[in-house]
Amino acid sequence: MNRTTKPTLGVAMVGYGFMGAAHSQGWRVAPRFFDLDAVPVMRTIVGRDAERVEDARARFGWERAETDWRRVIEDPDIDIVDICTPGDSHAEIAIAALEAGKHVLCEKPLANSVDEAERMAEAADAARARGIRSMVGFSYRRVPAIGFARKLVQDGRLGDIRQVRAVYLQDWLTDEDGPMTWRLDKTLAGSGALGDIGAHAIDLVEHLTGSRLATVSGTLETFVTERPLLGETVGLSGTASEERGRVTVDDAAWFTARLAGGRADRAVGSFEATRYATGRKNALRVELSGSRGAIAFDLEAMNELQFYDATAPAGEQGFTRIIVTEPEHPYMANWWPTGHAIGYEHAFSHEVVDFVGAITSGSDPEPSFDDGLHVQRVLAAVERSAAEGSSWTPTAP
Amino acid sequence: MNRTTKPTLGVAMVGYGFMGAAHSQGWRVAPRFFDLDAVPVMRTIVGRDAERVEDARARFGWERAETDWRRVIEDPDIDIVDICTPGDSHAEIAIAALEAGKHVLCEKPLANSVDEAERMAEAADAARARGIRSMVGFSYRRVPAIGFARKLVQDGRLGDIRQVRAVYLQDWLTDEDGPMTWRLDKTLAGSGALGDIGAHAIDLVEHLTGSRLATVSGTLETFVTERPLLGETVGLSGTASEERGRVTVDDAAWFTARLAGGRADRAVGSFEATRYATGRKNALRVELSGSRGAIAFDLEAMNELQFYDATAPAGEQGFTRIIVTEPEHPYMANWWPTGHAIGYEHAFSHEVVDFVGAITSGSDPEPSFDDGLHVQRVLAAVERSAAEGSSWTPTAP
Amino acid sequence: MNRTTKPTLGVAMVGYGFMGAAHSQGWRVAPRFFDLDAVPVMRTIVGRDAERVEDARARFGWERAETDWRRVIEDPDIDIVDICTPGDSHAEIAIAALEAGKHVLCEKPLANSVDEAERMAEAADAARARGIRSMVGFSYRRVPAIGFARKLVQDGRLGDIRQVRAVYLQDWLTDEDGPMTWRLDKTLAGSGALGDIGAHAIDLVEHLTGSRLATVSGTLETFVTERPLLGETVGLSGTASEERGRVTVDDAAWFTARLAGGRADRAVGSFEATRYATGRKNALRVELSGSRGAIAFDLEAMNELQFYDATAPAGEQGFTRIIVTEPEHPYMANWWPTGHAIGYEHAFSHEVVDFVGAITSGSDPEPSFDDGLHVQRVLAAVERSAAEGSSWTPTAP
Amino acid sequence: MNRTTKPTLGVAMVGYGFMGAAHSQGWRVAPRFFDLDAVPVMRTIVGRDAERVEDARARFGWERAETDWRRVIEDPDIDIVDICTPGDSHAEIAIAALEAGKHVLCEKPLANSVDEAERMAEAADAARARGIRSMVGFSYRRVPAIGFARKLVQDGRLGDIRQVRAVYLQDWLTDEDGPMTWRLDKTLAGSGALGDIGAHAIDLVEHLTGSRLATVSGTLETFVTERPLLGETVGLSGTASEERGRVTVDDAAWFTARLAGGRADRAVGSFEATRYATGRKNALRVELSGSRGAIAFDLEAMNELQFYDATAPAGEQGFTRIIVTEPEHPYMANWWPTGHAIGYEHAFSHEVVDFVGAITSGSDPEPSFDDGLHVQRVLAAVERSAAEGSSWTPTAP
Repeated sequence: MNRTTKPTLGVAMVGYGFMGAAHSQGWRVAPRFFDLDAVPVMRTIVGRDAERVEDARARFGWERAETDWRRVIEDPDIDIVDICTPGDSHAEIAIAALEAGKHVLCEKPLANSVDEAERMAEAADAARARGIRSMVGFSYRRVPAIGFARKLVQDGRLGDIRQVRAVYLQDWLTDEDGPMTWRLDKTLAGSGALGDIGAHAIDLVEHLTGSRLATVSGTLETFVTERPLLGETVGLSGTASEERGRVTVDDAAWFTARLAGGRADRAVGSFEATRYATGRKNALRVELSGSRGAIAFDLEAMNELQFYDATAPAGEQGFTRIIVTEPEHPYMANWWPTGHAIGYEHAFSHEVVDFVGAITSGSDPEPSFDDGLHVQRVLAAVERSAAEGSSWTPTAP
Repeated sequence: MNRTTKPTLGVAMVGYGFMGAAHSQGWRVAPRFFDLDAVPVMRTIVGRDAERVEDARARFGWERAETDWRRVIEDPDIDIVDICTPGDSHAEIAIAALEAGKHVLCEKPLANSVDEAERMAEAADAARARGIRSMVGFSYRRVPAIGFARKLVQDGRLGDIRQVRAVYLQDWLTDEDGPMTWRLDKTLAGSGALGDIGAHAIDLVEHLTGSRLATVSGTLETFVTERPLLGETVGLSGTASEERGRVTVDDAAWFTARLAGGRADRAVGSFEATRYATGRKNALRVELSGSRGAIAFDLEAMNELQFYDATAPAGEQGFTRIIVTEPEHPYMANWWPTGHAIGYEHAFSHEVVDFVGAITSGSDPEPSFDDGLHVQRVLAAVERSAAEGSSWTPTAP
Repeated sequence: MNRTTKPTLGVAMVGYGFMGAAHSQGWRVAPRFFDLDAVPVMRTIVGRDAERVEDARARFGWERAETDWRRVIEDPDIDIVDICTPGDSHAEIAIAALEAGKHVLCEKPLANSVDEAERMAEAADAARARGIRSMVGFSYRRVPAIGFARKLVQDGRLGDIRQVRAVYLQDWLTDEDGPMTWRLDKTLAGSGALGDIGAHAIDLVEHLTGSRLATVSGTLETFVTERPLLGETVGLSGTASEERGRVTVDDAAWFTARLAGGRADRAVGSFEATRYATGRKNALRVELSGSRGAIAFDLEAMNELQFYDATAPAGEQGFTRIIVTEPEHPYMANWWPTGHAIGYEHAFSHEVVDFVGAITSGSDPEPSFDDGLHVQRVLAAVERSAAEGSSWTPTAP
Repeated sequence: MNRTTKPTLGVAMVGYGFMGAAHSQGWRVAPRFFDLDAVPVMRTIVGRDAERVEDARARFGWERAETDWRRVIEDPDIDIVDICTPGDSHAEIAIAALEAGKHVLCEKPLANSVDEAERMAEAADAARARGIRSMVGFSYRRVPAIGFARKLVQDGRLGDIRQVRAVYLQDWLTDEDGPMTWRLDKTLAGSGALGDIGAHAIDLVEHLTGSRLATVSGTLETFVTERPLLGETVGLSGTASEERGRVTVDDAAWFTARLAGGRADRAVGSFEATRYATGRKNALRVELSGSRGAIAFDLEAMNELQFYDATAPAGEQGFTRIIVTEPEHPYMANWWPTGHAIGYEHAFSHEVVDFVGAITSGSDPEPSFDDGLHVQRVLAAVERSAAEGSSWTPTAP
């Protein structure tokens, strides 16, 4: 095939933090390993601070740097807008980009409020009618073990799923003398563990099962309510002062959910999201218990999937540790030979592959803004339930 | 030491099912490996069916068989009454035995209702004043890994415990065509997964932390509401008929709890008990997350304890898989050389060691009937909460 | 069934150390859980030191104590002689017992030399003609996971086995200031890690595969050649003196073997036995790699078996962690419900079950003295090979 | 820092197979995550087939494609020659490049014979005097878990290392009907499992311990001696014909080695390399047993390191599963936040970082061509030993 004749897609990325680094790697690497029908070109990176965004541009390898995202919305060379900013600016940028005819990839959570998310989903609907695509960046859907687990579920290998266990365990707040940061301030972060990492657990369960969390009973807790303020220097390297700031977000969230539809219709799920699970660094774990089988996944061993086949001969049953690095597993045929692990950021290459594939094939990518809106509604329902003594709360509007 | 001069303790055991077999093994083996200050003698086994109890007597190695438990209450050769019957007869037997001056070891759960449990605890209090000992058979407290974990907690190695995760996962109801049994009938069993296995999770957390579950928010679910009735032959070997019976107990239970006192004061715990966790045979798992460390235990690997020391040098932290078979670990110096595993029933030998030790030393063994009553109250509170939309419910009377 | 009419088998046990404790537990417990066709009765325990053997008698629960093993050979009440002494007395006792018409269970290794082992095997052959049974105590054959693995092999689930990996890793000599003991003195112990634990690895591989180690290339090493002598008090509790004794046995042994016959015909095996594998307490590990599948076992997780089915669908292959506690697994239906672990000493109950079963059914138990002799020949061949620069050495006489 | 003023280094890569893809990814990604003192520029890719190399150029993102490696040797824009061809052309290209003043990164194994490797090492020595750097591509040295393990060893945390276990287990030849390939033809591949993957095990042990394998006793085996020839179409996608080709390399290799120098002076190591370890996809495993501790690593879980501290309090010892994704671990501070896994190809970025760092700082990178030559000598000694009945064979010339 003659690669030079392929169409290109001009990409602009807004934001240059952790997610900016991850998305840049996705745009850079995906075309090197996957045969895309259009070649994404890393045109413009956008950030408010001119010096910093120029530094990010050079480091991440974008052609141009801009300080105003409206410039890329107007730029005819830009086909895709990739939004990696904090949640409070998602709605404004995404809606403007969609209205301007740009395909939009928006980091999770879709927004900081249900209201914003609803407006974004409406804009996506309107854009869809004009062939404009939109997708939310729940990147863990693109971990091969998850993709393969989903296939097992869809093929009926688990039968009727009755129970779901989903936790996202981190421990970076274990030390009570760790500093106050913007992530612990509700006015800036919107939410704590619930929205930041709990959202991943919700999306993953819904993705794997094809079901929706219909009602929830939730609890939120803040274990350490005051933390040392950093001195003048802002950031993790700042010096802790004797003053203390007030933590206004949840440190941990628990909720029980009843599911509806899909393979886990009428199932019950238990969820936990926490930053206080001492020793657990990034343990997003999902276990599905079905009438014919079960699967278990732990992001801390992301290249493995545990599968239990309850239809195997008695005496031979057990959880099979599948090392998900074979050509039969999603995306893996394009990477390395059998048995060679991939890492965290590969999911972002897969995200690019699927998003570009949807654009070139004229289909709608998943997760959609509607999916993102639904997650937002679940988060809001958990917060409402927690505020009302854990009473059962529907997630539907 | 001259063993022949040791005092003896005459033991009567009421019941001869699964727990009867386990307790018999405890009484038989404990004196062979531990140097007890009094030697228990397996005098009398009691059961209602004369033929069956005689068969059990011969198989388990008791001297005599009786069909009426009142006979052993009156027997001056009996010092200890060990109650292994279903929960509905615990109160009557235990109270009579205590009043007759017999030391009582009573299987868990202490009773089928809070009311019964309260009367048993009162009887135990009264008996204690006369030097009569009583203990509930939460045998998992005597698994060496649990004993060692508790020591780490008490020594402050976990710091302040903020989070507790406790699940008891089994899967013997996964097959929806499995037969109806008395365990699924509320009038006989009192409760389903909650009381049967959830009780273990509650006791273990309270034992490890020295804290109490103070309030709970719970959910119960029955996934399969009708199951085939067995034919004429009662028991697991019976033939399934076409008639179906109604399941009236919970298949699974979830609850969130707030703890008070002890090392987990103000901690939040999440609990699950289920018989539908496909592939999990006997997975009683407890994880405690503290400010200085964490421990994790899984009964499916009962000779191991995972310990995380958050005060270890950065870069070297991780969960240490301690194989709990060393002389430094509780009870283990009396068994085999380093690295040799013990099994399920060893905990019953340990129970005998501790109960006999309490009797000979004149101290009160744990868990007490008060502890058992408290577990009963937690179970009742979970049921109440579940019936009232998961509202938070205190466990105190 | 009327248990009282069952025949009995009078048992005498010679020796009362670690193996004496383990065997006593086997004799005591087996009839309580298994329905044997004859009931073993723990008649006589034999040891040279009158006071110690009397203490062991009381502790282990034997009827009588004797100081001369010849007395039990002559005793008409004794049907079975169970030899738990160090290897240097095996031949004399076993041959005398067999000639006197006693069934003999002899601890491994069968003897301290090939010559002795040959005479024992001859005596066993002669006795067999008269209906007298003999068996070597390679107890790990009776671990349920091993029994189940063997069945998988025999059923052809592994296809042709091409490679074997077998190691027995312990670490109790890691500390170079640990004391000198008789086990490190060749004149007393005969051999070091090779004969003590390497013998188990050899037997297990031959048992699992039905193949024989035909030729070997071996290496022996003594890492710490001098160790502190203990002071006057003999035993582990003695005080280390400044004098040092010479270690005259191997600390570790490695050998490569070519197999013949059975399921691993023409396979190559690698073996290691060591007391210096820091952190490994009792890691007897076997892995078999076949054309259709593989199994892996580790005694440190003795209730688990890893099974890989290379005929499973591509993408679903992986090692399945079978928890070997189900009724389908060897011996397990007689113990506890599903998911309940057994421990180290249960293998000795299984040994009793199989030995008594062979006696009552008139069949020959395994492993036979011929099997034990063969292991002895392998050990001798490894030593010869090591002495001759690791040259390949046949194990056949 | 102003990135635009940084010096650049022109890179040419010879070869475009699996290693070409991996190295390209290393050159592409390293400068995006690490602050290098010179920026590598992907100038020229070289391959014999014009069409294929042009395709690789476009796919991997090089500026130019060439069909004659001599052109890049003469090109003044090229500073670094990266050799990813099969082993038979390494010597010619590397020596020419070094003589022309190019820094050389050469894939492992250094060469197909000791003779070639010696000439390459001589050329590297001569070039070093002129400031020209050379390095062998044993990429697994750059896995963070290995780097951290090495630090523990160097810091004395393992004490004196007495035993080494190193295996590299793959299973892609398990199916005996799998096709004949050039890798199984000695005239093309030079060696089988021994040189291909055994070389990694050797280098890793020497890197971790700072010791050399001094003498070896080895065994080689070919399990399946004939395999179906592919039809006309060469490559994995070809159709198997009925003709069969002769396998002339080893399928598996085992060797015992005595080490000298470094932290494992006088240690004994056991090694295995195989393509028949059913179920093991890419299991490069190393375990080091020392007087004060141990480490264990498995490439199938490459983000983990098991560390055993034998100086920890009795009862708390055990293997600690360190998740090697923290800022304290080598290279990891430059990637993602705590707990986020990296994959196989990250080691190639680290290789670029270290090689460029050596060039810019004027120091000699490791592993040197001398190191590569030594590995070649070990491989040759194993083959000699195997041919002479496993006799002990020195690795020194």
